[in-house]
Amino acid sequence: MGKKIGKQTVCLSKGVPILSTASTVGPKEAEGPLGAYFDKKVEDALFGQETWEQAESFFVQENMALAVEKAGLKMKDMDYILCGDLLNQCTGSCFGIKNFDIPYFGLFGACSTMGEAMSLGAMLIDGGFAGHVLTGASSHFCAAEKQFRFPLPLGTQRPPTSTWTVTGDGAAVLAGKGEGPKIVEITTGKIVDMGVTDANNMGAAMAPAAAALLLAHFEDTGRMPQDYDVIATGDLGTIGRELVVELLSKEGYEMDSRFTDCGIEIFDAEKQDTHAGGSGCACSAVTFCGYFYPKLKAGEIGRMLFIPTGALMSPTSSQQGQPIPGIAHGLVIEGCGKGAAR
Amino acid sequence: MGKKIGKQTVCLSKGVPILSTASTVGPKEAEGPLGAYFDKKVEDALFGQETWEQAESFFVQENMALAVEKAGLKMKDMDYILCGDLLNQCTGSCFGIKNFDIPYFGLFGACSTMGEAMSLGAMLIDGGFAGHVLTGASSHFCAAEKQFRFPLPLGTQRPPTSTWTVTGDGAAVLAGKGEGPKIVEITTGKIVDMGVTDANNMGAAMAPAAAALLLAHFEDTGRMPQDYDVIATGDLGTIGRELVVELLSKEGYEMDSRFTDCGIEIFDAEKQDTHAGGSGCACSAVTFCGYFYPKLKAGEIGRMLFIPTGALMSPTSSQQGQPIPGIAHGLVIEGCGKGAAR
Repeated sequence: MGKKIGKQTVCLSKGVPILSTASTVGPKEAEGPLGAYFDKKVEDALFGQETWEQAESFFVQENMALAVEKAGLKMKDMDYILCGDLLNQCTGSCFGIKNFDIPYFGLFGACSTMGEAMSLGAMLIDGGFAGHVLTGASSHFCAAEKQFRFPLPLGTQRPPTSTWTVTGDGAAVLAGKGEGPKIVEITTGKIVDMGVTDANNMGAAMAPAAAALLLAHFEDTGRMPQDYDVIATGDLGTIGRELVVELLSKEGYEMDSRFTDCGIEIFDAEKQDTHAGGSGCACSAVTFCGYFYPKLKAGEIGRMLFIPTGALMSPTSSQQGQPIPGIAHGLVIEGCGKGAAR
Repeated sequence: MGKKIGKQTVCLSKGVPILSTASTVGPKEAEGPLGAYFDKKVEDALFGQETWEQAESFFVQENMALAVEKAGLKMKDMDYILCGDLLNQCTGSCFGIKNFDIPYFGLFGACSTMGEAMSLGAMLIDGGFAGHVLTGASSHFCAAEKQFRFPLPLGTQRPPTSTWTVTGDGAAVLAGKGEGPKIVEITTGKIVDMGVTDANNMGAAMAPAAAALLLAHFEDTGRMPQDYDVIATGDLGTIGRELVVELLSKEGYEMDSRFTDCGIEIFDAEKQDTHAGGSGCACSAVTFCGYFYPKLKAGEIGRMLFIPTGALMSPTSSQQGQPIPGIAHGLVIEGCGKGAAR
């Protein structure tokens, strides 16, 4: 049985091990600073499909199967799949997993979806409802630009505050038993709306939600930022990270270099012309699965606070003048070996 | 701790009571056969808002607050909100609940979302992660037509197989203790894709998923259709229901008049010109919350199998020639009083 601690946090009765992860990315991500860490790099972002949307589904299909394979399991061993994406009606996920023949809970947390999937998946396992849960999240630059902003052939100029949607899929297999870094606590985010309306400045839109999540987590657990080896938000980019540092400082929490953002890690903003950083559901998903997970497994990271962040808007809500509410979901993950002893 | 029985079903350690429900609907639903059962009937589907999308969010906001009030609780007593809708990027839900200040898991199961929300909510409670979970689902005819089919002012003719998206929101408060009809078992659906591509025949697209869910449920539990006082699918309409009866009959299960569909119940198809019936996330949500829940509470229904159904497509996937995969989520709910003794 889980236990609620504080207002927004639950403590799992025993840590839920992440047996394996898999990350599959497009060419731009492969050329970035984390390129060497990803399992599979696809040379053509169309991935042999006819449309960008079908390509995204193919990323989902291939990568989720890879995560299961890496855990030494078969797809039929999975009790549930929990995943989601940014495409209209989450078709990236639905069409990606439709042939897996596994009970499916579709999620929408915008770019925070990987956090939502891992949170719910860990609770289903800890509550005794599942032995294995396959979690994941995906996004695709070309499909996202077309849907949320402008068709790519227009060659629209991008403002400096904009971020670059990551093409790829990240997936993780959670289990009731076995070896691996363990999810031990979950802090679930509330929607935070500070009235930001600029769809080209997602970092600013999501920063208040990330800051609120961090504050709630520190209050619920009694910990300080320095109690974590790594704190990684999802896709705030440079502008959003700076805002979080400022907001937390006002509340008496000094965030240092151990606080990073997956959107800052995944691209070399200057060389790759990605402006404020990476974004999209896949940003935190592939960065966690490809880059942080092996470090947790090797004991190089003892305790990590992983906080995928999301902007809960649609082109329609923006066109109707609505603000961009943000959300963030936090998970405490403990590394293997002596790192976990702290 | 929950327990898995069979392949797709879990049994909750103790039944999770539904403390209260609320249903708010538009004018067409109010004029239908179930009109008298709904808590709140809105005369103008715009509900005092400027756009159909904002109206849907207002249905969510007002109705979810009403469900909490009917349970004799305050919004701050809720540990989580789980809800979703059909609008792009689930903005119906996000904008509806954004001021509630409660941890939020956004869901997308198309029109099966109420089943998904109640399933996950019940497991979170049974697993010890929450004392109260607010669940819900919404849809709006005008917003859905505009997004999925044609703008209303075009006056496009509707084929006989089409269904009518229900305008409204259904919400239910689940709890760790208290009185009310109890969720006792959950059968979670897999995606079923039989290659149906006609976006004007959702009943046919979803029927195979509903039939597969029923089969899995009967196999997992060893029960027969006659072991339920009511079996109600979400929004198959007359065509989809007929197909399910046929598919189940081939497998040796004879479905009788105890098997109904929320989309058949909610409208008088002939008088209201709704063709094959009602549909949309709100169809099963308001029909359960407004019509079936009081019967469960009064002990008039002893055991019900509630199966919200969903079609996992988007206009983009349809335009690209993709099929319409279906999904269905089943919950066994036991009524109060002597009805529950069976």
